[in-house]
Amino acid sequence: MKETYIKELRQINPSNAVLVEGFPGLGLVGKIAIRYLIKQLKAEKFAHLYSPHFPYFVLVNKKGNVRLLRGSFYFWKNESGQNDLILFTGDSQAQTIEGQYEIAGQMLDFAQKYAVKTIVTIGGYRMEAKGKPKVFAAATSHELLDKALQAGAIVSASGSPIVGTAGLILGLARFKNIGALCLLGETRGYLPDPLSARSVLEVLNTIFNFNVDLTALNEEIAKAENMLTRLQKIEEKRALQAEEIRREEDRKTTYIS
Amino acid sequence: MKETYIKELRQINPSNAVLVEGFPGLGLVGKIAIRYLIKQLKAEKFAHLYSPHFPYFVLVNKKGNVRLLRGSFYFWKNESGQNDLILFTGDSQAQTIEGQYEIAGQMLDFAQKYAVKTIVTIGGYRMEAKGKPKVFAAATSHELLDKALQAGAIVSASGSPIVGTAGLILGLARFKNIGALCLLGETRGYLPDPLSARSVLEVLNTIFNFNVDLTALNEEIAKAENMLTRLQKIEEKRALQAEEIRREEDRKTTYIS
Amino acid sequence: MKETYIKELRQINPSNAVLVEGFPGLGLVGKIAIRYLIKQLKAEKFAHLYSPHFPYFVLVNKKGNVRLLRGSFYFWKNESGQNDLILFTGDSQAQTIEGQYEIAGQMLDFAQKYAVKTIVTIGGYRMEAKGKPKVFAAATSHELLDKALQAGAIVSASGSPIVGTAGLILGLARFKNIGALCLLGETRGYLPDPLSARSVLEVLNTIFNFNVDLTALNEEIAKAENMLTRLQKIEEKRALQAEEIRREEDRKTTYIS
Amino acid sequence: MKETYIKELRQINPSNAVLVEGFPGLGLVGKIAIRYLIKQLKAEKFAHLYSPHFPYFVLVNKKGNVRLLRGSFYFWKNESGQNDLILFTGDSQAQTIEGQYEIAGQMLDFAQKYAVKTIVTIGGYRMEAKGKPKVFAAATSHELLDKALQAGAIVSASGSPIVGTAGLILGLARFKNIGALCLLGETRGYLPDPLSARSVLEVLNTIFNFNVDLTALNEEIAKAENMLTRLQKIEEKRALQAEEIRREEDRKTTYIS
Repeated sequence: MKETYIKELRQINPSNAVLVEGFPGLGLVGKIAIRYLIKQLKAEKFAHLYSPHFPYFVLVNKKGNVRLLRGSFYFWKNESGQNDLILFTGDSQAQTIEGQYEIAGQMLDFAQKYAVKTIVTIGGYRMEAKGKPKVFAAATSHELLDKALQAGAIVSASGSPIVGTAGLILGLARFKNIGALCLLGETRGYLPDPLSARSVLEVLNTIFNFNVDLTALNEEIAKAENMLTRLQKIEEKRALQAEEIRREEDRKTTYIS
Repeated sequence: MKETYIKELRQINPSNAVLVEGFPGLGLVGKIAIRYLIKQLKAEKFAHLYSPHFPYFVLVNKKGNVRLLRGSFYFWKNESGQNDLILFTGDSQAQTIEGQYEIAGQMLDFAQKYAVKTIVTIGGYRMEAKGKPKVFAAATSHELLDKALQAGAIVSASGSPIVGTAGLILGLARFKNIGALCLLGETRGYLPDPLSARSVLEVLNTIFNFNVDLTALNEEIAKAENMLTRLQKIEEKRALQAEEIRREEDRKTTYIS
Repeated sequence: MKETYIKELRQINPSNAVLVEGFPGLGLVGKIAIRYLIKQLKAEKFAHLYSPHFPYFVLVNKKGNVRLLRGSFYFWKNESGQNDLILFTGDSQAQTIEGQYEIAGQMLDFAQKYAVKTIVTIGGYRMEAKGKPKVFAAATSHELLDKALQAGAIVSASGSPIVGTAGLILGLARFKNIGALCLLGETRGYLPDPLSARSVLEVLNTIFNFNVDLTALNEEIAKAENMLTRLQKIEEKRALQAEEIRREEDRKTTYIS
Repeated sequence: MKETYIKELRQINPSNAVLVEGFPGLGLVGKIAIRYLIKQLKAEKFAHLYSPHFPYFVLVNKKGNVRLLRGSFYFWKNESGQNDLILFTGDSQAQTIEGQYEIAGQMLDFAQKYAVKTIVTIGGYRMEAKGKPKVFAAATSHELLDKALQAGAIVSASGSPIVGTAGLILGLARFKNIGALCLLGETRGYLPDPLSARSVLEVLNTIFNFNVDLTALNEEIAKAENMLTRLQKIEEKRALQAEEIRREEDRKTTYIS
């Protein structure tokens, strides 16, 4: 394997398809969103993306079976007659600069093959925010951006970078005459963040009228919040102990002077 | 040398050959296992693998002769009429991601040339375990995995990665219609671990009926245990001294306060 | 995108053009100088340079629009009939050695296409100097160097390196029969340094009789000086506090002994 | 410039030529030796080697002229009718693994073009030795090694690596049917070491009967020794001061307890 390539597992006949990409990144926002859509819509896998720029290990599944790191494309036929969906997520982003450009480029070629006119990339945006996570939008055209804003997203701060595949796809899309929109959910970033993914999915739902039911995400959100609470308690306890040790030492110092 | 290439030193005519790979890795489990098989079976070297992705130095032998880092293929004709063996080990793994994919790919092409149907890769699995090292197995097919389990191996934990050539060969094997099995021996990983290699060789022996006598490994195992005991004593002594210094300092502190 | 490439946005018909390059580097001297020339001369953008060796993120502008990192070429028709100008700056230098060589090479090919006979590269030279920043010059020919010296530049110290695109263009220029001159303005390097850029632009003005009015740079220089003064005050305050803490601790130690 | 290439400046007609390589490395032993030979023999430059794997900066000479990092080949016609000499040194080794293999490979191709049968590579060998630096030898054939041993070199320790171009040329030479010998002079390695270079040149002189007068190296050796003595004095002084501070603090501690 000298370069990134896409292996198709079966034929699809998409009509007016939108490609939605969500590689792992900050808070796993993109990956959680795509996995939820796949499960909820019962989208079917139809292609794999392999690359020598992924990390050089393989993964073992619970049956002792082994596979390369890869990306996977899923297809959902929209029975309403509106946009079909091609969903993409994967195990890991490329590990080199050149690999990042190569993978984003290959995904665009693949989108073109299926006459995709619009790509949405999903990621996280690091922010120590409270309340419902906001969704930042950036796009290759005003039309796409406006749709996102009308659906509740806000404009990214000027000059802010969008790192990795989610960004490069937008950057390279204009050379292929494909419109691309990036939706970034606010996230602290260090833990899987389904709450942020839900915010992004709400915007996506509104833009494309997908009517995906998001209630099943609530369980995952509750789990993540429990996890966070537990970690915060551990951290608080650790901080208290550190404070106590510091005071103890202060007392000693006081005795001396 | 622009890419990895294999230089054949002589012709072989393998029949129903199994390729067993053991590059250096954790605890040198793979390399120790392969070297033992080569010695015990008197397998003969028939090819070298060179790569510009190996480290950029050469090695001097005791006669002042010099050679590139490389991998070596050995051949053993199985007089019992069952599987012949092609054994592979080397000085070092590739130093770049792309090199790792390239070398694993070249080895599979080479296996295909000799109509190899089954590849076994050997490595170590980091574990602070006691007693006889277990052997973890992962495979590209249920048949291969089952053979390993029946021979005493256990299934790798789901989601655990297999890093380097031992893993990538399995990942890439399915594109070549070659079955591949990975056997990982438990090892602490920081010292050469012939005990772990013996566990792996027992499983291999059973799967393929090679009947390789493993008793000659015992001497190496005893040496490794002596080495470990010596290192542990040094470490204990060091820890005791550190403790003494700490107490000494505590006493001083007590005088002060 | 497998390699660096230049996308032309419109036709230009340069006559006896000089290409002036200023990628970001020490003190942003090159980038500030080029941006000032573009603004002052109302030069028009006519081409973009893209590369898979730039960092793998994209930038969002204030309208939520997204673009790849890139370099940009601007054209200025010199109404005086003397040298036309092609100006170049960009977001970032290449991130790999090979990328650095590739981009410098592509820029030279592009210059050759427009029959450019002279290239000037601009950068910063790290120096803790006071007063008006000096301009160091190095060139591929004595004629070019002499022009710079007559315009007030001084010769770079022998053996000193010129790092990045500003240097490689000179190194590679001789293979293309293009004359190249490098002008490096003295700068502390850690803050944008328009004062250093002005020194360089004065030399450039004199060499090519561009008569570019530099007074509009003064405002930027004043801002940078304010910024520097503020940072120095913060630093002085921090140093004073550290000194006070140290003395406080000294007093305690004195009480003890 | 996509790959390493060699630009010939003039024709040479070598007869039975030996190529001697000395890139910068430990103690600059190879570079000092080659530069001395060039000067002493008045060898003439006839080719340059350029590579996109060298560091990405250029060098300014005292006239303000600029050049890429490069290697240079020099030719010496041996009037005695014995081996002619092709000498090679350069500014820097390649910065990537693949670049190291590429440059060593290109040098061998170039040697083959001129029917070179023997290559000698020179480098340093890190050792805290006293007295006259020894010379370690390694070779691709017993004949070459024996010549070096008879000339006073000793065999390298088995298993020791030879890093960089000096090693890879030997490793790759056997694929080109060229004999190659590596001579490594003992050196502490952190300062230019003409004393070590002289040891190597004595061995080289003896092997090939070059009769190069080495007395002119003595001045450089004296300078290097002065430099070393000065540095050692500075270091001793610094150590004394540190010791004094430590004692001062011990006294304080004593007062306390």
